[in-house]
Amino acid sequence: MASIYGDFIKVSIFGQSHSEAIGVSIHNLPAGFEIDMEKLQSFLNRRAPGRSKYTTSRREEDIPEFISGLVGNRTCGAPLTAIIRNTNIISKDYDVIKDVPRPGHADYSAHIKYGGYEDYRGGGHFSGRLTAPLCIAGGIFIQILEEQKIEINSKILEIGGNAKEPYLEIERAMNDGDSVGGIVQCGIKGLRAGIGSPIFDGVENKISQAVFGIPGIKGIEFGEGFAIAKLKGSESKDEYYYEDGEIKTKTNNNGGILGGISNGMDIVFKVAVKPTPSISKEQDSISYSKGENTVLSVKGRHDPCIVPRILPCVEAAAAMAIFDLLMGECNVR
Amino acid sequence: MASIYGDFIKVSIFGQSHSEAIGVSIHNLPAGFEIDMEKLQSFLNRRAPGRSKYTTSRREEDIPEFISGLVGNRTCGAPLTAIIRNTNIISKDYDVIKDVPRPGHADYSAHIKYGGYEDYRGGGHFSGRLTAPLCIAGGIFIQILEEQKIEINSKILEIGGNAKEPYLEIERAMNDGDSVGGIVQCGIKGLRAGIGSPIFDGVENKISQAVFGIPGIKGIEFGEGFAIAKLKGSESKDEYYYEDGEIKTKTNNNGGILGGISNGMDIVFKVAVKPTPSISKEQDSISYSKGENTVLSVKGRHDPCIVPRILPCVEAAAAMAIFDLLMGECNVR
Amino acid sequence: MASIYGDFIKVSIFGQSHSEAIGVSIHNLPAGFEIDMEKLQSFLNRRAPGRSKYTTSRREEDIPEFISGLVGNRTCGAPLTAIIRNTNIISKDYDVIKDVPRPGHADYSAHIKYGGYEDYRGGGHFSGRLTAPLCIAGGIFIQILEEQKIEINSKILEIGGNAKEPYLEIERAMNDGDSVGGIVQCGIKGLRAGIGSPIFDGVENKISQAVFGIPGIKGIEFGEGFAIAKLKGSESKDEYYYEDGEIKTKTNNNGGILGGISNGMDIVFKVAVKPTPSISKEQDSISYSKGENTVLSVKGRHDPCIVPRILPCVEAAAAMAIFDLLMGECNVR
Amino acid sequence: MASIYGDFIKVSIFGQSHSEAIGVSIHNLPAGFEIDMEKLQSFLNRRAPGRSKYTTSRREEDIPEFISGLVGNRTCGAPLTAIIRNTNIISKDYDVIKDVPRPGHADYSAHIKYGGYEDYRGGGHFSGRLTAPLCIAGGIFIQILEEQKIEINSKILEIGGNAKEPYLEIERAMNDGDSVGGIVQCGIKGLRAGIGSPIFDGVENKISQAVFGIPGIKGIEFGEGFAIAKLKGSESKDEYYYEDGEIKTKTNNNGGILGGISNGMDIVFKVAVKPTPSISKEQDSISYSKGENTVLSVKGRHDPCIVPRILPCVEAAAAMAIFDLLMGECNVR
Repeated sequence: MASIYGDFIKVSIFGQSHSEAIGVSIHNLPAGFEIDMEKLQSFLNRRAPGRSKYTTSRREEDIPEFISGLVGNRTCGAPLTAIIRNTNIISKDYDVIKDVPRPGHADYSAHIKYGGYEDYRGGGHFSGRLTAPLCIAGGIFIQILEEQKIEINSKILEIGGNAKEPYLEIERAMNDGDSVGGIVQCGIKGLRAGIGSPIFDGVENKISQAVFGIPGIKGIEFGEGFAIAKLKGSESKDEYYYEDGEIKTKTNNNGGILGGISNGMDIVFKVAVKPTPSISKEQDSISYSKGENTVLSVKGRHDPCIVPRILPCVEAAAAMAIFDLLMGECNVR
Repeated sequence: MASIYGDFIKVSIFGQSHSEAIGVSIHNLPAGFEIDMEKLQSFLNRRAPGRSKYTTSRREEDIPEFISGLVGNRTCGAPLTAIIRNTNIISKDYDVIKDVPRPGHADYSAHIKYGGYEDYRGGGHFSGRLTAPLCIAGGIFIQILEEQKIEINSKILEIGGNAKEPYLEIERAMNDGDSVGGIVQCGIKGLRAGIGSPIFDGVENKISQAVFGIPGIKGIEFGEGFAIAKLKGSESKDEYYYEDGEIKTKTNNNGGILGGISNGMDIVFKVAVKPTPSISKEQDSISYSKGENTVLSVKGRHDPCIVPRILPCVEAAAAMAIFDLLMGECNVR
Repeated sequence: MASIYGDFIKVSIFGQSHSEAIGVSIHNLPAGFEIDMEKLQSFLNRRAPGRSKYTTSRREEDIPEFISGLVGNRTCGAPLTAIIRNTNIISKDYDVIKDVPRPGHADYSAHIKYGGYEDYRGGGHFSGRLTAPLCIAGGIFIQILEEQKIEINSKILEIGGNAKEPYLEIERAMNDGDSVGGIVQCGIKGLRAGIGSPIFDGVENKISQAVFGIPGIKGIEFGEGFAIAKLKGSESKDEYYYEDGEIKTKTNNNGGILGGISNGMDIVFKVAVKPTPSISKEQDSISYSKGENTVLSVKGRHDPCIVPRILPCVEAAAAMAIFDLLMGECNVR
Repeated sequence: MASIYGDFIKVSIFGQSHSEAIGVSIHNLPAGFEIDMEKLQSFLNRRAPGRSKYTTSRREEDIPEFISGLVGNRTCGAPLTAIIRNTNIISKDYDVIKDVPRPGHADYSAHIKYGGYEDYRGGGHFSGRLTAPLCIAGGIFIQILEEQKIEINSKILEIGGNAKEPYLEIERAMNDGDSVGGIVQCGIKGLRAGIGSPIFDGVENKISQAVFGIPGIKGIEFGEGFAIAKLKGSESKDEYYYEDGEIKTKTNNNGGILGGISNGMDIVFKVAVKPTPSISKEQDSISYSKGENTVLSVKGRHDPCIVPRILPCVEAAAAMAIFDLLMGECNVR
């Protein structure tokens, strides 16, 4: 199974937390698009660590180096590749987890899958750091989509169950050496009706596959999602009407998607983000080498909450899915 | 975009509600597996309509005819194709929706996508009837997985928001000419640790892509899902311990998946099913030809609730995803 | 590995020589195209057996039944599936090959791959009969391409090494209980410049993958192919010039393809077709069950030469490849 | 269309002749394989320019930098990425071709495809230089295949039509400011019977798709290829016999492949390599900007013949195809 997304656009993500570099190749970008590098960097900075009191102190500049696919700042049709060097690496922090997997991380499942050859340092290819290349790709897609008046935004709905003062929960968690998760909503405006496909390549399927590519996401719902399951058909029906000659729905319980295809209303979805599993508190775990239970105490620099930094990642994943869906609207006639 | 699922196994679903037949081709099935046809039929009957007072009275026998891929009842390595003839078709029921899209259905989004050439009769390729070929494929996968002690089960958690007397809600909706949705939980036992992949081809990504192939599903969550977003890291951590020499987790908040890879615990996920959009009540809609608002009154035979019939579909989708993930564990060494 | 072709269009072929039916599903066809059924049948008849003195006497009508994807004769956007029932089956002809593989056929390689569970009757999924569904798909693609002034033709260059009287060689082979192969040329007119891709998804790569899907083809060359390897650069250069404002090349040694991308000249390629391995003469083989050498004498009805019937198959494969390449020219901008 | 190869292994190639770097990502490599870096470098050196009197004087060291996927020299299961910096770039050599396409190169077809935004410098992504990342991937696959006793070799059959003194033709072409092509044979020993698939994913299809990824190849034939088309069935039949308990064929006219599946004999194929289109002689071409015919005189450093350097590329492509085919032999049972 590959770290490649897309049926038409192909986004290939590579790198580990502590490898020489992380990066992304994007195949099938249209030729001739000029990337606004400043805007892209601003987008990447929203995700980068070390920029607020709520995030890990591991500060990476996250400045992509474009090594292929551009002439100047303009796409040339060849696969675009950007890399970010991993400069601020303290590998010794992770020595202990070679033998003792961190609960809630991929350490153990990766250990089994790769037969002990996994790059355990910093979570390897499973690290949240791999959302940086995703954001490079997504940031470019967002710029191209904006040309067509498609806009993607996200916001925090709640953190640690607190919708009114979400950041307060982060502070509390920090003080406790604990962590919190939250719920994020993402909206896509301007996507015309008729995009997507029934059954397996619908808007829900494609966005889900992209969004679960972000570490820590454990649920997704479209429109009213789990809440719609409590409604009656007469309450959830999204009736049609004409407004200025355009067909619209009075409500948007279906989140802009019917039968896997956009209906011209905003695409709306929410994702559940789990609390960062890295906490300062001691945790029970096991030792592979000793074959016995043990207690793990993880040092290192970790976010008490990844929800604020996950916003651009969700937007990037959504943009990537929408981009692929739009490319799927090819037609020889 | 294709109605094909899988990176390794390829499940190609075809047919419309009112075409000559619906069916499925499965490429890459192992050769030499003997399908228990009686067991498969029992599985299909759980999905088939007309078998309880809660479902549509359109009774289709849903008996697959295997037209390729078998010698006797045994797979021969060639693509397996099964079809079900559409026999009980009353197309005139659907004449009105050619011009007036039903709210909550794919009528309108399909109309735009296919430029008016869509097969609107009975929802065409978007019909819930297309879950029958999904269940043929899934039913076969389930049998092969059972050989390896992998078991998939699902159950209704609630209908219409009622967890204690879910069927009562269906009866109420029937009496009101209304409909209800619900929440279904699915569990997969026996999947060994190490299956899946980081980033885009993980267990969550693959199950999601499969499950959103079922019409009416609007949300999915793994393990504690949206509830985990309200917990602290210290509460949601799934600590490890040894039990009889095996590594297990004390809790299963992550639903058996870490970093996209199974950890040997049960895979657990829940899906939100929306209320059937077909209701007897009048609904506001529009007329394409008149370019004005109108009122739609749908006759026809419809389920007040598809949740009971969706159970085997969810199991089928899960089996298909797990099967594909297992095939992805190929290795040349 | 699947019997599915295409990155954008998806052509899924199923069936065995002696299964209930053979058929094809095509996903991603444009909606609203009206198939000329009479024209399609004429195309299929060029491939069908039993229509000339040179072909097998197994006469199959090869009339496709369209079971999905159409409303009337018009595509509706849903996957199109057509099947052909296998009616004229004499399975006992093939009993001997269950144990004794026919030289030059796939009997032995399939036997190993499928562990003895292969459908050996009539070559199973490896039978030349499976080119019938390929021709259904190709025949439809050809019609859609013709709308855009793209025309595909093929012709016999030689049979049994005889370019002047190719059919004479077939007659000789028939009289001798032997068989002959030949070389076929295919040309594609009207494909605009700029279609295809460098490296792995070029015109050569895509046509090759499609054409080697036809049993019996052992070589393919584009433009001057193997002959160009004997020329000098100064002789093979395809210089440019303007003609009526259009850029053309003086020669077409590259067969209309440079860097995997069409240059607006005719696409030209040739394929080598091996002699039918089924011959009346005795052949040396082995017995699986006895573990010893034996002599095989195949009865049954066979073509002394498949070259004439392969012409529509090559055109179908080429059309499929070109269709997929054209769909790949999608662009979100 | 993407520069990605493989259904199971995914090889993503990126870079242009004059971009910052060229490189390759390989997804799905088995974890735990230790790459012999010295051996890999020797393999790459066979392809590298500037190492014999017959090749271009552009000397690139072609030393890959591994930026992901390894821990030490051992694969860790994460996508492996290697890049080669483009250091010896003289872009001004190519200024003229921005407006005047070189005959026989992809300049013109790329110009149309990418709407004038192509990276024309040195052929961009179409450059033969992109076979360096292919060889990195192929060199790794070859090492893994060798572990399993699969060996891949290639040799020159003829250059400029001269089978007896092939290098003499290169010298002649050099002296004349001309170029020559040739024919290369590749053999794969040790591939067990049963690998591959009927119809579209057979050994021929997969090798062809890989091999046409090498610029300049215009034909491929398996076994006797075009020569088999001149034989009779009784002459080309590859009869079976037992040798030391193993089933073998007396001849190998089919190049080890029947029905797309290996039969345990050596896989043998030949490819036709066209003469380098870059020659010192003047060539007729056109000017885009002037819209008129012109004469092109290309300076720059070019090979009079790429056949010697293409050998490792063909081996790399073959190894990649075989690797993917072997990974396709996955089976859940």
